[in-house]
Amino acid sequence: RIERILAKSADIVAIDEDESFDFQKEKADLAVVLGGDGSILSAARRMCLQQIPVIGVNLGRLGFLAALGENELEAIWPEVCMGCYPIDEHAMLQCTIVRGWGASSESGVSESGYQLALNEASIMGGPPFSMLQIDLYVDDELASTYSCDGLIISTPVGSTAHNLSAGGPILHRRLEAVVISPISPHTLTMRPVVDRADRKFEMVIRQGHESVAAVFDGRVLGPLREGDCYRITRAPVSFQMISVPGKGEYKTLRDKLGWGGNPRVNKR
Amino acid sequence: RIERILAKSADIVAIDEDESFDFQKEKADLAVVLGGDGSILSAARRMCLQQIPVIGVNLGRLGFLAALGENELEAIWPEVCMGCYPIDEHAMLQCTIVRGWGASSESGVSESGYQLALNEASIMGGPPFSMLQIDLYVDDELASTYSCDGLIISTPVGSTAHNLSAGGPILHRRLEAVVISPISPHTLTMRPVVDRADRKFEMVIRQGHESVAAVFDGRVLGPLREGDCYRITRAPVSFQMISVPGKGEYKTLRDKLGWGGNPRVNKR
Amino acid sequence: RIERILAKSADIVAIDEDESFDFQKEKADLAVVLGGDGSILSAARRMCLQQIPVIGVNLGRLGFLAALGENELEAIWPEVCMGCYPIDEHAMLQCTIVRGWGASSESGVSESGYQLALNEASIMGGPPFSMLQIDLYVDDELASTYSCDGLIISTPVGSTAHNLSAGGPILHRRLEAVVISPISPHTLTMRPVVDRADRKFEMVIRQGHESVAAVFDGRVLGPLREGDCYRITRAPVSFQMISVPGKGEYKTLRDKLGWGGNPRVNKR
Amino acid sequence: RIERILAKSADIVAIDEDESFDFQKEKADLAVVLGGDGSILSAARRMCLQQIPVIGVNLGRLGFLAALGENELEAIWPEVCMGCYPIDEHAMLQCTIVRGWGASSESGVSESGYQLALNEASIMGGPPFSMLQIDLYVDDELASTYSCDGLIISTPVGSTAHNLSAGGPILHRRLEAVVISPISPHTLTMRPVVDRADRKFEMVIRQGHESVAAVFDGRVLGPLREGDCYRITRAPVSFQMISVPGKGEYKTLRDKLGWGGNPRVNKR
Repeated sequence: RIERILAKSADIVAIDEDESFDFQKEKADLAVVLGGDGSILSAARRMCLQQIPVIGVNLGRLGFLAALGENELEAIWPEVCMGCYPIDEHAMLQCTIVRGWGASSESGVSESGYQLALNEASIMGGPPFSMLQIDLYVDDELASTYSCDGLIISTPVGSTAHNLSAGGPILHRRLEAVVISPISPHTLTMRPVVDRADRKFEMVIRQGHESVAAVFDGRVLGPLREGDCYRITRAPVSFQMISVPGKGEYKTLRDKLGWGGNPRVNKR
Repeated sequence: RIERILAKSADIVAIDEDESFDFQKEKADLAVVLGGDGSILSAARRMCLQQIPVIGVNLGRLGFLAALGENELEAIWPEVCMGCYPIDEHAMLQCTIVRGWGASSESGVSESGYQLALNEASIMGGPPFSMLQIDLYVDDELASTYSCDGLIISTPVGSTAHNLSAGGPILHRRLEAVVISPISPHTLTMRPVVDRADRKFEMVIRQGHESVAAVFDGRVLGPLREGDCYRITRAPVSFQMISVPGKGEYKTLRDKLGWGGNPRVNKR
Repeated sequence: RIERILAKSADIVAIDEDESFDFQKEKADLAVVLGGDGSILSAARRMCLQQIPVIGVNLGRLGFLAALGENELEAIWPEVCMGCYPIDEHAMLQCTIVRGWGASSESGVSESGYQLALNEASIMGGPPFSMLQIDLYVDDELASTYSCDGLIISTPVGSTAHNLSAGGPILHRRLEAVVISPISPHTLTMRPVVDRADRKFEMVIRQGHESVAAVFDGRVLGPLREGDCYRITRAPVSFQMISVPGKGEYKTLRDKLGWGGNPRVNKR
Repeated sequence: RIERILAKSADIVAIDEDESFDFQKEKADLAVVLGGDGSILSAARRMCLQQIPVIGVNLGRLGFLAALGENELEAIWPEVCMGCYPIDEHAMLQCTIVRGWGASSESGVSESGYQLALNEASIMGGPPFSMLQIDLYVDDELASTYSCDGLIISTPVGSTAHNLSAGGPILHRRLEAVVISPISPHTLTMRPVVDRADRKFEMVIRQGHESVAAVFDGRVLGPLREGDCYRITRAPVSFQMISVPGKGEYKTLRDKLGWGGNPRVNKR
């Protein structure tokens, strides 16, 4: 039982089985997240501006974030509590909808409250599935117009998630960068672009339809109409993760993606 | 004015500006479609089982299907009317939703009316944008389980449309084949597969959500719930297109995709 | 020992451990190939115009072609000998170098002897690694000019080999088609093309260098200079493979490519 | 005549038509490179550790680096000479062959002299075209084993060159990063990886053949045998480029890659 293991070397502030713990009000030094990468994404989101260090324990399959098994946790827990392991800081994205961004000034512009994303911010379409046209502005300059099914701006941590499926590259986690990857781009020269994380990215709907939405870490922030903008900047806080030994990034890639050199395709 | 050109060598049965002509009831020898590839798709769909030969005239940009300019039409129209040009037959897909396909027999299975597609049949998701799991059966055998944002089964004619954006290959039009391409596949080894057109393809929703839909040529056929199946077979009719000289398929690819050999990337 | 198993139900004409058997002169009803996909490629090549049915037994890892384990062979061998299993015919490519194809007629044109390929025919470069320019003619019509590191024309059987690495699609084996895939194409719109297998494909070196070579199934047929042509047509014979139960093509893809639906990328 | 334009506002130290100028010995404040991206690569290489600011003028087609036309140069030349424009610094790679890296210590290890690359360092194969196996070490840790036709480590400037052809992403030029992209990777999960530029990358030949070579900016540095290592680090100097107005990076991508939003594929 993990609770017993943890209690040996630390005081347990709360056990948050129903996601009711309020990170904004209560204090803790460390959060142990059980369950998988999804649980860690959820924890990161809920901590919002009050990020505390996290250690992830996978209960099922190995995750990219939840890389520690139960037994491994038990072995290193006392050292974790003594602060033996460094903390990796991972950039998060601040995601805001700016309505009427592209409209004449009279109609008014309004901003939604923001949310933080650890993996990615994206614009996704739905019924009736016609193609989207999205203008991307970087630091107020028009970078490109994408005709596509969707557009993803991903952090290094998120680069192995939706971005990878959409054909984007893997970003090493300590890189201060984001990657912009279109889903099913109509123009074949539209390739993923890696840019610096400290810039302002604004995705503006030039042509959309009724179910276009701004999404962060797989959750809907709100609908997007033509002229609306989904603004993405680096969040003022970082996600903090205990760096445990033997879990290097390339090792995780080898384990998770089968990068060990075992050929998968037909003999040549 | 195109009407005058056409009237010189042929009787005009109808001018169908509002898509009200009933191809099922009235007879014509040839349909001249003005406007672009979208107009041709629409015509193909509306003809349904009563396909008559089509000649496409692009009013704006060159299309993959509407490859003829107004002046070119004028030049060859008398010969078209004399039957000087052969007719290319292009496979169409018959698209049917089978509800409750995966359910126990008691709950009952029901089929929707079918539609014909010239480009592609696809399953697409929408809000809340969680990943789809789709089982593909080919001739009643489980071929694969796709974790993805969508799945496209495309004809050769449609291979340069949504399929190409999703990373699929170009199929030569005279090939009796379809290509199955996932959109943003979660498993990186999931690559486009080209199979024979005379097989039965059944895409079954193993895990979906409320806005998953069966789509044909960019139109929604209906929603798909877990256990529902989207069945695709070769239609009993073919789309018939007048084959005009100087519009070979590789030539169209060169013109439309810039295949002329002009390097696009940085100097090496 | 496999020899004993085989001898129970069949007469062994020869055991060809050193690749010295002459398929052109001696007769046999069936060849049992031990060792893996490479051994099968080698057997197919050596049989040349005298193809006899083959059954492949993998001694190590599962292959795309050598899909049968030793024990499985033992179990079905008597039935194989009774002719219980159908024979699948797989298209092979006839590969010929035509020197001076692009030159003025005076200098003369000469053809090399041909070789047969089961997987693919390709043009590959080497030192000094400058980009190749290759004109592709299909049935004597210029299809496209590729600026690339190499160009592959693959059969359905070979589609899971070099073609797949280069970004090409998987072709179902019973499809009468080939796929043309460039390696590192300079022009981003150059995508794999699937065409009918009964056409004549001619790859002509427009711009090359000293180590450009014509390759078939991973073996060098000869060097290619500017103006030389590598002509690929469907071979007059087919590779014949015993079709054993439980080794369907999609099943092999699932087994070899991990297509079973196990997600490989990060949690969304 | 460009010479006249230049002479109006500056003293011309030398006109280097035959690549004989010795940047290591003679001094100049600025190099005007005429001709295209290839000429700029050549200049960058020849300056080696004595980099001086460069302004590139394309005489033919627009380049990624040589982005200025002759007339544009004339218009801004006086201001260039007054130092009105900032200088962009672009990371270069230091490329060294370490022979016998993987061998037992007795046989001895030796390093080649290094070269600097502005675009990329790569390992490329040639005849007999068998697959390469390359171990990649990052800061002395095994990152991955690639089975492939070649492996490219590219700078941001080079990301639109060979890297892009091989399927890699575009890196914004001000990013302190490199991208590692395999050519035709055998294992389908091997995707391009973007890592920090300040790390040590060592590509070690685990399995090769006689014509494997270490390449920098398209030139051969030397052959690589099994156990040899191609070591890539950030060069101690940067390539310096005059930053002229109206030539933003995204604008160049739009111009060169046709990113203006003009759809290229078939109508949906």
